[in-house]
Amino acid sequence: MDINPPWPKGKKVVHLDLKGAPPKLDYLCQLIECFSRMGVDGLLVEYEDMFPYEGELKLLQATAQRPYSRDEIIFMQKVAKSKGMEVIPLVQTFGHMEFVLKHPSMWSLREVSNCVGTLNPCKEEGLKLVMEMLRQVVALHPDLKTLHIGADEVYMLGEGELSKQWLASPGRSVEQLFLSHVASVVNYIKEAWPHMTIIVWDDMMRGMSQDTLKASGILGRVQPMLWDYTPNLDVEKTVSLLEKYYSAGMQHIWAASSFKGSTRVYTNVPSTQRHVDNHLQWLKVAQSVPSGLNIMGIALTGWQRYDHLSVLCELMPLALPSLAACLQTLIHGQFSPEAQKIVTELLDISSVEAGSMGSATGDVRLFPGRRLAESIVDLDSLLCLEDIKSFEKNMYVRGWFSPYQKSRRMVNPLISVQIQSQASMYLDLLQEKVNVVREGMRHIYPDSTAQEWMEEHVSPVMGPLKRILDEITECSMEIVPAQR
Amino acid sequence: MDINPPWPKGKKVVHLDLKGAPPKLDYLCQLIECFSRMGVDGLLVEYEDMFPYEGELKLLQATAQRPYSRDEIIFMQKVAKSKGMEVIPLVQTFGHMEFVLKHPSMWSLREVSNCVGTLNPCKEEGLKLVMEMLRQVVALHPDLKTLHIGADEVYMLGEGELSKQWLASPGRSVEQLFLSHVASVVNYIKEAWPHMTIIVWDDMMRGMSQDTLKASGILGRVQPMLWDYTPNLDVEKTVSLLEKYYSAGMQHIWAASSFKGSTRVYTNVPSTQRHVDNHLQWLKVAQSVPSGLNIMGIALTGWQRYDHLSVLCELMPLALPSLAACLQTLIHGQFSPEAQKIVTELLDISSVEAGSMGSATGDVRLFPGRRLAESIVDLDSLLCLEDIKSFEKNMYVRGWFSPYQKSRRMVNPLISVQIQSQASMYLDLLQEKVNVVREGMRHIYPDSTAQEWMEEHVSPVMGPLKRILDEITECSMEIVPAQR
Repeated sequence: MDINPPWPKGKKVVHLDLKGAPPKLDYLCQLIECFSRMGVDGLLVEYEDMFPYEGELKLLQATAQRPYSRDEIIFMQKVAKSKGMEVIPLVQTFGHMEFVLKHPSMWSLREVSNCVGTLNPCKEEGLKLVMEMLRQVVALHPDLKTLHIGADEVYMLGEGELSKQWLASPGRSVEQLFLSHVASVVNYIKEAWPHMTIIVWDDMMRGMSQDTLKASGILGRVQPMLWDYTPNLDVEKTVSLLEKYYSAGMQHIWAASSFKGSTRVYTNVPSTQRHVDNHLQWLKVAQSVPSGLNIMGIALTGWQRYDHLSVLCELMPLALPSLAACLQTLIHGQFSPEAQKIVTELLDISSVEAGSMGSATGDVRLFPGRRLAESIVDLDSLLCLEDIKSFEKNMYVRGWFSPYQKSRRMVNPLISVQIQSQASMYLDLLQEKVNVVREGMRHIYPDSTAQEWMEEHVSPVMGPLKRILDEITECSMEIVPAQR
Repeated sequence: MDINPPWPKGKKVVHLDLKGAPPKLDYLCQLIECFSRMGVDGLLVEYEDMFPYEGELKLLQATAQRPYSRDEIIFMQKVAKSKGMEVIPLVQTFGHMEFVLKHPSMWSLREVSNCVGTLNPCKEEGLKLVMEMLRQVVALHPDLKTLHIGADEVYMLGEGELSKQWLASPGRSVEQLFLSHVASVVNYIKEAWPHMTIIVWDDMMRGMSQDTLKASGILGRVQPMLWDYTPNLDVEKTVSLLEKYYSAGMQHIWAASSFKGSTRVYTNVPSTQRHVDNHLQWLKVAQSVPSGLNIMGIALTGWQRYDHLSVLCELMPLALPSLAACLQTLIHGQFSPEAQKIVTELLDISSVEAGSMGSATGDVRLFPGRRLAESIVDLDSLLCLEDIKSFEKNMYVRGWFSPYQKSRRMVNPLISVQIQSQASMYLDLLQEKVNVVREGMRHIYPDSTAQEWMEEHVSPVMGPLKRILDEITECSMEIVPAQR
């Protein structure tokens, strides 16, 4: 067992990624209450297209479901405040602006046409757009002290025509291009709100030299957030990185771990152990930070998608055991039997793994969304069965219902019956569990989320089953042809 | 290493299953020559729909390709005779009559309507049909001494209306129903050709008591052929079965092993080891047969399909290393280094496994169909790659091109390009190897076989790849929509 000192200092912030599966307000408030019981003292809120942008920016609002209203956003802050939690909005200002740049009227602001996420840093309009987004978000957060401006994964930067011109001047690099845009955003924020603390993802700065960082104009004005979500995070490398940032003059630094949304792009049920391991590695990093460096806190990220255009990954209810376990790991410095006991008691579960937590016995309010989580675990176990997910690879289908037999409607009736009854049985079983999941989602998510989740996680499995069943049923109505 | 006495006595007969991939005459003659060099002294020929049935039976002829002509069948016998090989035709007379009973005019002769293979034993017409088939086959084999009348896997026997009536008389069983039809066939043959030796598959008799067998009326008139194709054949059980047949009065018995066509219904490349293991088990059985029992020989079966309606399994060229290895195992009593050396020299291959036999270096005539075998090994290794055969399960497709993204034409252009280039690369690679296989088949098989093999083994893999490529290419031509 890993034994470390507890997480040394700073806030424990949970990432609320609203760019997919945005919870209904009532469920959101239950979550905040639950987070508070777990020991959370801040929310990093990524509204994305769920923010009620106004005026020229109205087109940024989601259309599949109603974005949060102004009142809802104010109310959520009030609930968070009542639990002593700071709310930190995360507004993307450089990369991962897919929800903005996908709109035809915004295409001209892409760095390159085939990269939907990256803003062109060389256009005044782009900067204006970002500033207006920031202005509207800040305006709706009256007590705001801290803003996260994103800026991770700025793919294809430097590939655009204007960027190439900018880079053509002697001594200019893509690193400088990145820093210059961030500096512009930071300057705007500091002018408008001089006391605002600004957080930025660190990944674009990882390869930069101390000299480049020192010349960036952002030192002392932004706090980098180092992210690493892997269970085998390289402690030595991460400590070196911290040391580099610190030596360059960055004294206030955040960590970002993960409790969900970082396993596979399509994962439904998170592994608590995987995420606890990630936090154990971060605890080791925290032991070795340079003295003098201020760890401002750790954001436990919970991604709802890998990006705006990808499928939904783990829904929040399924990740509450992992979140509780990660927080207790930070609090205890280890995932000890005591820490595990606290987790199982906090949520009234029989295992810290969502996949085997069992059915609720006591007060289901301890675990908001419990029934939905259970029903998805149940459905997912079917969706992952080899016999079901690769039905078209079974010996009857491959042996007696290949494209050859299919196109000639040449089927063996006894084997057709076998294939039909197997496919029907699986489809009925899946449909039954799908109905339970849909019902569970109704209280927590908009209909559009239920619909999307089904098309992303259930249709890829039920679709082929239905297709084979339809095709073989059709063939079975034909006579067995006389000719091969 | 297993060490046994060599196969004790009788013929070593190779099964030529012509119910799929019927070789062109020229290749067939090359095969017979090759078999002879390997130590084969008989051919068990299952013509199925490749026999030139005439008159009322003309409809039994294959239509996808021309059946063998009368001259071709005579010529093949001449070639076999010149190599000292006896030709034993296998004519199905009870079960596995799919190629007969699939024809609408024959439907009334099925035992039950949904079982294409089993003949109704209670109709005089059915017996007449079988007798006419036998008559035509015997007529085209002037020197015939031995006939195999099939009668394996008579599924659903006793389920037909007439059979139920027959069974309703006191003391009658399905076993007796089976035996009574076989006895009728045997009586007909013995009347027409008194000196004909008759072989029958044993599987329907395995559960019968000695009393039932003794009362069957076929004792001393048929020679059962015990078949077991598994690498872990149960020696003790098989010996007990032999003892039962012997005690019941069956003194002449055949064994049937397998050198291909018994692994999976869709296998392309046989494992030599698997089939050698099957023969090692048969050698152990042969050591323990009751004294007095005459082992007439062993048929090395090489199934070309599991039944008339299933896909093609291993083609003959791919199974020549396995066949040579199985024969050497019988000859040496073990698959010793010497036996292996003889196999590699006989066929000029660097490994006894077709999957790793390498490219031909010397006289390719030693191994008829060598180039085709090599090209299929090559293609099959691609078809079996997880990345290729389960392309739709890769993270880009599952994460960014699920039915949800697809139906909304909501794709990430950078990831689309990734999916497109990967799919195109795999398709090009496959097509290149498919072309080589097609060319190799041209000399050996009719076009219909090449076409069928492609639709059964290649289309299930290339189809989904093409579909995904088409769909994502179509989506990529659309704009990324503004709305989720």
